[in-house]
Amino acid sequence: MIPSISIVGRSNAGKTTVLESLIPELKRRGYRVAAAKHINEEVELDTPGKDSWRLARAGSDAVILSTPGKVAIFRPEPRPSVTELQRLIGLDYDLLLVEGYKQEKIPKIEVRRGQSPEPLAMTGELLAIVSDEHPPENIPSFDFSDIRGLADLIEKRFLTTKTLTIGLYVNKKRIMLNPFVQKLISQTITGMVATLKGIEGKIKDVVIWLKPND
Amino acid sequence: MIPSISIVGRSNAGKTTVLESLIPELKRRGYRVAAAKHINEEVELDTPGKDSWRLARAGSDAVILSTPGKVAIFRPEPRPSVTELQRLIGLDYDLLLVEGYKQEKIPKIEVRRGQSPEPLAMTGELLAIVSDEHPPENIPSFDFSDIRGLADLIEKRFLTTKTLTIGLYVNKKRIMLNPFVQKLISQTITGMVATLKGIEGKIKDVVIWLKPND
Repeated sequence: MIPSISIVGRSNAGKTTVLESLIPELKRRGYRVAAAKHINEEVELDTPGKDSWRLARAGSDAVILSTPGKVAIFRPEPRPSVTELQRLIGLDYDLLLVEGYKQEKIPKIEVRRGQSPEPLAMTGELLAIVSDEHPPENIPSFDFSDIRGLADLIEKRFLTTKTLTIGLYVNKKRIMLNPFVQKLISQTITGMVATLKGIEGKIKDVVIWLKPND
Repeated sequence: MIPSISIVGRSNAGKTTVLESLIPELKRRGYRVAAAKHINEEVELDTPGKDSWRLARAGSDAVILSTPGKVAIFRPEPRPSVTELQRLIGLDYDLLLVEGYKQEKIPKIEVRRGQSPEPLAMTGELLAIVSDEHPPENIPSFDFSDIRGLADLIEKRFLTTKTLTIGLYVNKKRIMLNPFVQKLISQTITGMVATLKGIEGKIKDVVIWLKPND
């Protein structure tokens, strides 16, 4: 599961504006970034009668539209949580930035402009504040012009992870893996395992075997 | 990787109509089905100025729109292949049905109506024909009214897989798993492993260990 940070703030505080600077800054540093926006109205999947609409209406659990330059995947999902979004987008990204989702228990960056009201985020979840006002002293705070400082903090906290060495045996034979595939398998397994009941603390080692059913 | 079948046929042969019957029939049998449609024009991600458009323009590698009942994931992808679609939608589905993608080397169902022209699909790739005409005798063929017969064939060929028993140890401790999670992990690993170089024949057993880098 890739790390996720929520950008919270009152209406027009500048959440999307912060994301518009933060995303390119993280991209410049070589990270792959997904961004999510929750909207309270339903998006229509094409117009009634069109083929993709017909596939959705026929009961497809997912409808995919592929174009010359893009893939769009639509799936029904009542009240999707950030955890569900993280699961759905897989491991192609280093970070998921979400706008809103104030109620979820994930690290938050709060954006404030003008008068400084009470923080929206719980102190324990508040990673940083972006503000044009004098911010509280106990929380890392950045001016709207210091998005690089904010990116430094995110990089330090979420984007320097260690991978585990992997050994793989299929039909009793050792399979050699290049570094990319090692990382892919290692992160898939640790991500999958981290969410299971009964896992306490940091994952230090994992052993999995699969064998035929009797 | 979930299995994928392409529905091919000339314009107005009835490809979407076949899918509109086939999808609910497979759903009735308990399978989770994703359906993909390729279109040759670009879909716009919202209107310029809107937040999701701004997130895309800022360079996000994926933009997610979540609504009260749906998740839509948009990602740039030049000329997405069926293999890439299979990878992107993950393991939540039992089958991916794609309309078109005639050139790809995947099993195909050809839909014909009216006069019977030369088959569009290579014989080796042709799983079945749906037709209102007398079809060739060497290929399983179904009338437009016999979608259940077509579903039987698909089920037999693609949807009866055996899972492997799994044992999982994290930080040296055995982790007990419910059947759903067992299936998830088992299919994730066999799916991932099946695509690797050096794997010959059917996967009978797998052992993976992860340990810290020195």
